[in-house]
Amino acid sequence: MTAITDQIRNGVDTVQMFGTLDAIKADASLGRFQFRVANAWQGGAHNRSTIHRFYGAGQEDTSREAPFTLDAGEPAVLLGHDEGANPAEALLHALAGCLTTSIVYVAAARGVALTRVESRLEGDMDVRGALGLSDEVRNGFERIRVTFSIEGDAPEEKLREVLERATARSAVFDMISHGVPTTVELAR
Amino acid sequence: MTAITDQIRNGVDTVQMFGTLDAIKADASLGRFQFRVANAWQGGAHNRSTIHRFYGAGQEDTSREAPFTLDAGEPAVLLGHDEGANPAEALLHALAGCLTTSIVYVAAARGVALTRVESRLEGDMDVRGALGLSDEVRNGFERIRVTFSIEGDAPEEKLREVLERATARSAVFDMISHGVPTTVELAR
Repeated sequence: MTAITDQIRNGVDTVQMFGTLDAIKADASLGRFQFRVANAWQGGAHNRSTIHRFYGAGQEDTSREAPFTLDAGEPAVLLGHDEGANPAEALLHALAGCLTTSIVYVAAARGVALTRVESRLEGDMDVRGALGLSDEVRNGFERIRVTFSIEGDAPEEKLREVLERATARSAVFDMISHGVPTTVELAR
Repeated sequence: MTAITDQIRNGVDTVQMFGTLDAIKADASLGRFQFRVANAWQGGAHNRSTIHRFYGAGQEDTSREAPFTLDAGEPAVLLGHDEGANPAEALLHALAGCLTTSIVYVAAARGVALTRVESRLEGDMDVRGALGLSDEVRNGFERIRVTFSIEGDAPEEKLREVLERATARSAVFDMISHGVPTTVELAR
């Protein structure tokens, strides 16, 4: 293999990765990030998030030329017109994305070349909570199940270790499994 | 106002809404939903969720003709190529979307016609956790702040009540603020 092949593993530049880790080790303030979303109601169950700037690595990041937009909606049975994935599904997407990227980065750091990472997520919800019809069920998912199929140049036991380490370090898994102090206020 | 104007409030069919609530009151099993996401790695920090079928209201829902797809990526400073909003931003989108739809539905139920619902969300994260550089900081956001601007045909105090009720019943707010039991496994 060439040096380039070694440097780029799983599509991740490992030289950049270890450089980033060294830089944050040397100056912990570079690890402070703030992510932001602006959302605007479009009517009915339809609303749209705009995602652009963030703070991180010691500065306001201006590298994104254009914002990302994500639409949220609801299916007909939940009084919408399918204007987008619904917010509970978007939460599962966030979880899938974070676990997958964690797997890819951990594998890159440990010298495991991956060929496939796929996942299926299920969340069970009794909507009587969110609809205000019952105080005996919670509003959100009662449980979430995530099942990964992972293939690469390592035995299953090694791939299992990568998954366990990735889960232990995933930002969104941490938030969804442990919760985050969250304030909701009216603007003054 | 015409009867139609009264029936459709904030883009929500209130006759359908109260009919749905009555149906679930009469048969609690109709309140059981399962939402699902399938995700596939695209290389590096890029992965894509496909969101289609779900179970709810007593049956497998087949009303969506095509799936939704959502891309996740990371910015350059986090070793990606900006292939999409990152998973932490997607989680904020899920929260914004759910709170907004809850506000719109609660307002529709209470006879409040809204003209504007906008929100800004911020999440603070020390990425030393997720990068495995520190066990003293958590992996996810330390806190999330959500600020709403809401306008409609009601005094601020009423709009504040709508926001409080919507927050108290939001599925994603519940999950993010309290956490969800979540299992992550390798497929057999």
